[in-house]
Amino acid sequence: MPDTPQPTLPLAPDFTPYRPGPALAAITCTADMVSVIWEDGLSHAFNSYFLRENEVQAGIVNPVTRERDIEIDELPEDLQPISAEVDEAGALTVTWAPDDHESRHHPGWLRAIAEGRWRPNAGFPAPVTWDADTMPEPPTFNGPAVMDSDAALYDWLHALATFGLARLEGLPTENGTVEKVARRIGTVRASNFGFLFTVESKSDPDSNAYTSAALTGHTDLASREVQPGLQLLHCQENSCSTGHSTMVDGFKIAEVIRDEDPELFRALTDLNWLFSNRHPDSDFRWSGPIVETDPDGSLTEIRNTSFLRANPDMPDSEVPRAYRAVRRYAALARQDRFTCATLFRPGDCVIFNNRRMLHGRSAFDPSEGNRRLEGCYLETDELLSRLRVLTRSGHGPR
Amino acid sequence: MPDTPQPTLPLAPDFTPYRPGPALAAITCTADMVSVIWEDGLSHAFNSYFLRENEVQAGIVNPVTRERDIEIDELPEDLQPISAEVDEAGALTVTWAPDDHESRHHPGWLRAIAEGRWRPNAGFPAPVTWDADTMPEPPTFNGPAVMDSDAALYDWLHALATFGLARLEGLPTENGTVEKVARRIGTVRASNFGFLFTVESKSDPDSNAYTSAALTGHTDLASREVQPGLQLLHCQENSCSTGHSTMVDGFKIAEVIRDEDPELFRALTDLNWLFSNRHPDSDFRWSGPIVETDPDGSLTEIRNTSFLRANPDMPDSEVPRAYRAVRRYAALARQDRFTCATLFRPGDCVIFNNRRMLHGRSAFDPSEGNRRLEGCYLETDELLSRLRVLTRSGHGPR
Repeated sequence: MPDTPQPTLPLAPDFTPYRPGPALAAITCTADMVSVIWEDGLSHAFNSYFLRENEVQAGIVNPVTRERDIEIDELPEDLQPISAEVDEAGALTVTWAPDDHESRHHPGWLRAIAEGRWRPNAGFPAPVTWDADTMPEPPTFNGPAVMDSDAALYDWLHALATFGLARLEGLPTENGTVEKVARRIGTVRASNFGFLFTVESKSDPDSNAYTSAALTGHTDLASREVQPGLQLLHCQENSCSTGHSTMVDGFKIAEVIRDEDPELFRALTDLNWLFSNRHPDSDFRWSGPIVETDPDGSLTEIRNTSFLRANPDMPDSEVPRAYRAVRRYAALARQDRFTCATLFRPGDCVIFNNRRMLHGRSAFDPSEGNRRLEGCYLETDELLSRLRVLTRSGHGPR
Repeated sequence: MPDTPQPTLPLAPDFTPYRPGPALAAITCTADMVSVIWEDGLSHAFNSYFLRENEVQAGIVNPVTRERDIEIDELPEDLQPISAEVDEAGALTVTWAPDDHESRHHPGWLRAIAEGRWRPNAGFPAPVTWDADTMPEPPTFNGPAVMDSDAALYDWLHALATFGLARLEGLPTENGTVEKVARRIGTVRASNFGFLFTVESKSDPDSNAYTSAALTGHTDLASREVQPGLQLLHCQENSCSTGHSTMVDGFKIAEVIRDEDPELFRALTDLNWLFSNRHPDSDFRWSGPIVETDPDGSLTEIRNTSFLRANPDMPDSEVPRAYRAVRRYAALARQDRFTCATLFRPGDCVIFNNRRMLHGRSAFDPSEGNRRLEGCYLETDELLSRLRVLTRSGHGPR
């Protein structure tokens, strides 16, 4: 007689290698759900349609692409679990009415859902705000190591997610290096300023960025529906003794105003401004608040390309308060006590959250030498995806 | 004695060629604003800081780039208009305390603000929803004409903004044509699926799109924070008698549910779903409602890549109602009475609002011939910018 084959676990509807965890201890079927209790006491109720539409099997969820093959209205009405049990491999099996289907589900996937690991922000660090005292220099990492090692990549991106900025040093200086760094994370976002852009003092500038003048702290592209999530600036050449790169934590400035004048803070979160970017061949406009918070009141975004701020988009009676608020925000954001100022060295590459940091520079003297940066944008989506992939392959929180 | 030079109007802080309109009839200065009445009775109150920070003059708004050079906190506190008048050229001039500055403002720009033409949606058509009876074929335009003429480009994009889709015919069929069409609008948005993508039946498909199977209507990339605003699909080859392109107006389906069952409609607008796109090298997640409305209740977006819909992100008690709602939405969206179905002809290019239309296709028989589409994405920002530029150069509403 042949050996009885060892039962194997079903596939999960994602690519996470779920490790063994607490066993399923009790299962209860009710009208429209299957409730599970684990041996450590955690419990979760799974909706019937949720279980059925997430079973990995040809015709339901494609086992190769993990894309769903079935549309939700193709499942029967009045779906009900009739019985459920844990099979020899530890998987949940459920028998259903009215179609007599038997489904089978990976226990690690069920457990991850009960623990909330499916949430978009699961496992990500909370932002830590800073000022010049606590952030005299950006968190700095070895550039070549980050290009070669996923563990080093994780550490760099974890610092970025926490502090809103992180620097690499020791990179090559040739053209296109910034794109290679960006591709360690994901897809570059092009804009009307190009795929990559070069920041240097030009004889015929079409933006203040391309002069040697000081730039006060700002986010980029606030006139777009979505400001670029990340910006990378890679230094190819710098022989100037000034032209410091300045970074201010826009969340910190918002916190200071919240503490000193809650009503003024609400003028930043509740009143919209039009941001408008005007060129002969384009006319980008978006209306939104300077500071965005989530329903819990946590800071989520700063929209403050101050030189593109245009019309107050609010009741006339609110306009004076709105101007008081942006004046206060601007005055605080230029103070040294909030500013992390560093000179770029050739081979440095700074990455920052463009929806949180206010980046700028001090003036420099172009007769002293050359200062050339190459930059690009990425979406926040790309950072979060890369952090999730690194985490599920073992580089996550230790 | 030389002739007195004719006074000229000041520059406006944008690139609109303002034409003469009603004259300024009366001006009143109060503590923090300048109020203007035109001879036709329209009136508007301009905040002092708004006027000052939008004056086009070196050091305030750069006359070349129209970017602002001054930060708002550099203007004096307690800014007050002392006197104001209309000068010989018809411009508003204001004298200010405490800094004795005299500012000068283009009257056409002031009038445009009073009329609300600065708003992001000013001059755009309202969406017109449709079903199979009212939309048997997509609105169709001459492809070469749109490539050559801004007037034809405006008509095509106006139809797109109105109906959510519009087709070009008679284009060449070589590779890269879709990018040339896209560049008539703006910057292409790359994704993890590439810069351009090719849709054809492949021997080793990594997505259902690359098979000959039917695809039910969906939006693309709902697992991203922002779904691509526009999608272009250009037909290079089609010798199959089936494989119809299907389009359903996702706003129309939402309207039908709103009419037949308001409580079910609210389950679509008020309850969030996680959308999750899982690949070995990426893990994109976003949580949002299936239907988005603005504060007035107007439909603004459909997020419904149904095969990427994952966890209900809502209180457990709401999950059954949420599944009823998505089942009803899916059942309606597959009905012929809402479906505009057409066969692609080589040289056709369809453009559609990917945040409103549900696009799909019927199955085809790859032994019958080849069916090859090339596609790409753009952001909604690019469409709106192009429409504004075309409008200000005279191609707008007539």
